Formats: sequence, C-alpha cells, structure tokens
Amino acid sequence: MKQIYLDHASASPVDPRVVAFAVPFLSEDYGNPSTLYVKGLDARRALESARGKVASLINAESPATIIFTGSATESNNLAIRGTALRNRQAGQKVVSSVIEHISVLNPMKELQKSGYHYETVPVDASGIVDLETLADRVTKETVVTSINYANDEIGTIEPIREISEIVHERGQYLHVNATAAAGKISIDVQKDGVDLLTLSSNDLAGPRGAAALYIRRGVKVQTILPGGGQENGIRSGTENLFAIAGMGEAAVIAGEEMAAERERLQQIASLYRQEILTIPDSYLTGHPTERLPGHLSFRFSRIEGESILLNLDTAYNIQVATGSACSSRTLEPSHVLLAIGLKHEEAHGSMIMTLGRSTLGEDIPYVVDAVKKTVDRLREITAM
Amino acid sequence: MKQIYLDHASASPVDPRVVAFAVPFLSEDYGNPSTLYVKGLDARRALESARGKVASLINAESPATIIFTGSATESNNLAIRGTALRNRQAGQKVVSSVIEHISVLNPMKELQKSGYHYETVPVDASGIVDLETLADRVTKETVVTSINYANDEIGTIEPIREISEIVHERGQYLHVNATAAAGKISIDVQKDGVDLLTLSSNDLAGPRGAAALYIRRGVKVQTILPGGGQENGIRSGTENLFAIAGMGEAAVIAGEEMAAERERLQQIASLYRQEILTIPDSYLTGHPTERLPGHLSFRFSRIEGESILLNLDTAYNIQVATGSACSSRTLEPSHVLLAIGLKHEEAHGSMIMTLGRSTLGEDIPYVVDAVKKTVDRLREITAM
Repeated sequence: MKQIYLDHASASPVDPRVVAFAVPFLSEDYGNPSTLYVKGLDARRALESARGKVASLINAESPATIIFTGSATESNNLAIRGTALRNRQAGQKVVSSVIEHISVLNPMKELQKSGYHYETVPVDASGIVDLETLADRVTKETVVTSINYANDEIGTIEPIREISEIVHERGQYLHVNATAAAGKISIDVQKDGVDLLTLSSNDLAGPRGAAALYIRRGVKVQTILPGGGQENGIRSGTENLFAIAGMGEAAVIAGEEMAAERERLQQIASLYRQEILTIPDSYLTGHPTERLPGHLSFRFSRIEGESILLNLDTAYNIQVATGSACSSRTLEPSHVLLAIGLKHEEAHGSMIMTLGRSTLGEDIPYVVDAVKKTVDRLREITAM
Repeated sequence: MKQIYLDHASASPVDPRVVAFAVPFLSEDYGNPSTLYVKGLDARRALESARGKVASLINAESPATIIFTGSATESNNLAIRGTALRNRQAGQKVVSSVIEHISVLNPMKELQKSGYHYETVPVDASGIVDLETLADRVTKETVVTSINYANDEIGTIEPIREISEIVHERGQYLHVNATAAAGKISIDVQKDGVDLLTLSSNDLAGPRGAAALYIRRGVKVQTILPGGGQENGIRSGTENLFAIAGMGEAAVIAGEEMAAERERLQQIASLYRQEILTIPDSYLTGHPTERLPGHLSFRFSRIEGESILLNLDTAYNIQVATGSACSSRTLEPSHVLLAIGLKHEEAHGSMIMTLGRSTLGEDIPYVVDAVKKTVDRLREITAM
C-alpha cells in the first residue's frame, strides 16, 4: 500500500537535493571551522555561506544576525531565557500568547520559577492573538514577548506587524517562533519588525540537528550553553556542518520555490478542505483564510483524533496528526484547541494534515474516501 | 598532494559504514518518534536501539540511563548545571580539575556566578589529578565533581576508579567527560563508579549533532532545555534520528574494533614518538604511558605551534593541532599546558597529533620528515 504522508509539521523528509549537498560534509569536508588549516577555513567558509543563505530567506540585515543552534527548541530557549536573563535590569516580565508551542511555554514557565512575572494573552476563536489584551499586558518591564508567526496545530497566521508595533510601543523585544511558517510564507524580519526569530532546518525539508535564531543587531542575548564560545559566544559546541550546510541549502530551495509551492499546496489543501467538510459534524479549526498554505486542521464530533490517526495509518497507510506534534503521546487535549474555545470532548476529535513537497494532488480522492470511511466507522462503533 | 589528517580530536570523518547506516533516516525513515503511527513507532524503535548500543559501549546498567543530547558541550552543561541545580538542597559546591575542557570549565563558572562555590584541583607535570588535593576539596556539600576520563590536549588518562572512591567517600556525584576517551579505551561506568558520563558521536567517528549523557539510575538531573519533554523530560526537542542512529552504529563499530585499533594506533604512535623526539629540544607533553592510544602531544622550544600547524598544512598537506581543539583561534596559551607547569613561551610551542581510523603506518616517514624540516626551518627564521 502506497504511503501518503500528511504530517510534515511533526517531521519532514529531507529533500534529496539537500541530502546530496550535505552528505560530503560527513566524510570528506569534515573540518572543524575553528581550526586554522585550509580544511578548517573551508569549513568556516561553508558555515558562513549557510549563514548567508538563512539570512536571505528572512531578509535579515546581515548574515551576522543568524546564530545556528541544534533545534527549534534550543532557539526558543535561547531567545526567551537568553534574552530575559541578559536584559534582567530592563525588566523582569515576559509575555506570550496562550497558543505558543510547548518549547516556548516551558522556557517562560522556567523564568517564572526564577522570579519573572509571566503573563499570557488569549486568542479569538480562529486563533488570532487578542491585540487589545496584548497591549494591556505588555509594559515597559516586559523584556520578551513571544508570539508564533503561525501556529503549527491550527495553521493560523498572526498579524506580526501589528503585534510588533504594540510590543515596541510598550515593551522591549519581540520574539517570533517562525518554525511552522518559515519557508512556507514570505518572512521579512526587517519589515515585520521582529527582534528575535526562530526557524528550524527540518521544517524547511533540511536535516534535523540545525536550527537558527535571528537576533536583530543590537539585541543582547546571553548564552544558555557556555563552552568553547562558538557562534560569537552565544552557542558553544563544534558546529554541526552537515546539518547547518543542509539547512542553508534547504533555505535556498524553499526561497526559490516558495511562490509556486505555496500556490500548489493551497490548491490541494482547498480541495481537501472542501471534500472533508462535506462530512457531517466536521469543522475546520483555526482561521478560515489567514492560514499556512498546505495546513489543514479539522475536528469531528463524537470521535477521537487518536482513533482517526491509527485507523488511517493501519487501514490506508495515511499519516496524519492529532493535537500537538511534539507531545501527542500525552492524553491531555491540545492547549491550542482549548484556547480557541473548544470543549475538552471537541478538542479530542482533532485531525491535522500538513502537506509538503512530496504531497500529490492525485492522492486527494483516495485520502478523502479513507477519511470519510474512517469517520463513519468510528462513529458507528461509538454509537453502539 | 595526499592529505594526511592527524587532527581527529577536533573533528573526525564519519565512518562510511556509519554514513550508510544513518542516511536512510534522512529521507526514508524520517518519522518523529513521538508520533503514534507505525512510521513513528519505527522511529522510536530505532531511537531505543541506538540507546542500547551506546549503553553497551560503556557497560551502562540499562539503556534508560542514556540521554541523547546535541553535542558534548550540551552533555557537559546538562551534567554539571542540570545536576547542581536539581540537587541544590544537597550542597552548593562544585569541583573540577584545572585541565577540564572549556565546556566543563565554563558551566562551572556559570554556577559560580549564580552563587555556587567552585574549586579546582591541580594536576602534576604529566596531567594526573592531584588526589590529595581532590580529597581536600571535595566535601559533603560538593554536589558535582567533574574530571575528564582522558584529556584531549595531552592524552593523559586519569585514575577514574580512585577518583570515584575519593568523591563518593566525601561528596556527591562524579561527572566524567569521556569525550576524548570513549571508543578508544574500554570504559565501564559501573566498575569505574561514575555517576554521569559524557560521550560524543563524532569522537566515535559518528556524525556531529548527537552526544549522550549517561546518568546513573537514581541520580536526579534537571533539564536545561525545557520544551516538549522528549528524552524522559531531560532533553526536549524532536530527536535527531540520523545523528542518533549514526552514533549508535558508531558505538557498535568502536566497541568491536577497539582492541585491534588500539593496538594498531599505539604502534603507529610509538614510532611517531620515537622519531619526533629525536628533534633537539623536543618534548612529549602529558603522561609517558598513561595516555590515549593514538594521541601524541609534543612541544618544541623556540617556535610557535601555530607556525608549525600552518607550515605542515601549506607545505605538506598534513593537519595537526596546537592548543585546545575548540578554541585554537584564541592567542592565549592552552590552560592545560600551563596547568602541567609549562611557561607561556613553552606552551606556545605545542603540536598535537591525534590519529584515527584512516591513519596509516606507511605515512610515518613522510610526516616525520615534514615535521623535522618544519621545525628546522622555523627555528632558522626565529634565530635570524
């Protein structure tokens, strides 16, 4: 049975062009960028080239604003804890929306444990941050405000420019977790007015093991991994050139193909949406129009998302998600779905389909049929 | 000109067998171990298999004692800061030798900034930790004592079992940075009496982007990267399966070939040592016998290690190191060489050769001749 993988938000296959570009860094161009011989200088050059490529994707003012880390989780931790701790004298308050990824929420809670005041901002039923409450919560003591560019569970794209204005009129730095958005929609950190921005390699179809944090020139951030002082003293550890070079190449491909791929995935997603919403008592979650291309999130009354996921996998070899990609082993309902106003039992019936480069329009009828049969079957069982 | 790479301590080429094993995890077996469908379960199985392989290499009591991180720097930070912070009530004192890697020293200094009492223990002229001073410094308030299994700059192997006895009679937990030693000499965390042990993938000829921290059952460690709760809540972030699976395979190969490879590298190193020490005013640094197989560290009077490095690279395509592999861009003399009693000008004349799997005995005459000519030439220039 052919595999139809529709869970790119939790893991993406690495683009074969990226693999071809990055593999030589394993056994041939394996130099340590900190060494002084030619092999080390070549490694340094490859590192800086990747930095430039990532900077271009988000229109950063300079490659030097890009710090490579090991994962989006680490970038989020660095952005939040590193910035808050370094700018402690400017204020000890931090703010985020309620629908942030757990790798944003948990660093915030860590700061709270060490004495910081942490406040959250609600979202409306479509997942858009409540700008009035944001304006109330952010004060001049608010050293970091963290809002996702787009939400990985419901696909909603936030009005980052308006958020940036609010944050900068009242508080200090805006961190934007763009893990789900980067490479899918156009991001311009300068026009968007972002101070810190997280993006990950794997979400660009690059290898895991690399992520980046954009740090606007002038923003002071303290290391959270002290050691050899790599990455301008902000992130120690020998640079993982295979993953970093791969991320750079993935950023180039994502940038070049973004417009066409966005159009293609929007068309496929639109057909999926139309067909799947013909199922009785099915609903789109998240924003109807301000959403990531290729991102679909539904809920179905009276059934469990986990059962949908397992049935689609076992009976049809289709992979989808339910709840948060990173903590789907927990039994708690998604904090994002509760935040947009769903009841516990409603939140449990969620199904997320995230399309990617390998997604084909020709699979739509098969997948739609499988989802319909699965929902019918599970509802029959539940009704018995 | 054929490349003769003798700087495996700063970066190792990934073994082609490891590449072949790990590459399928990029574009085929790319599932996220936290997902519930079969592809996710397969990923989970590969993750747990790698954990078992790494556990075996160091004879850990259970695979569950192995936590995967992104780098040796991160493992050292987790071992030191994670353990100290979690066990704050047991004492706020930390101890290390003076010759620890900078990714151990800097986390120690971080703790010091936040109020911990940090003391260092000197070493003798061969780099062996002064056990009497260690016994004086470690008290029941000493929550973490960190000593390297073997030093990456001078190759000296520490008497870990004796150190473990001293630490456990007086203080709390012993962390051992085995980055340079793992895969090269036999490590048994149970017999050695180690509580926490760092080992890195690349030092086993596996890909960068993975490292491990052994945490003896019962030792409580606090996360330093809060987020999705992967790795039993101790290290968040989607698992980098390519690097982790590669590290597992690299551990298997290292374990299987260790005895033979140790013998082979010791023979080559012994010939290098004999020949190079015929150069006037040349000295071996570190311990004459208790040293890593394939590790050679020398110093030459009246010349700069950096000049040796650059001349060997440019004129002979031979890559060696000088000073610490990770901070060799600094102009300060190695803290390790100063700690074994060398004067500044003596420490500046160091050359480190770390052999690896690709090192061939047949290259010895060429390399020895190149080193001799280089030292002669540099001394001539200096004498002018």
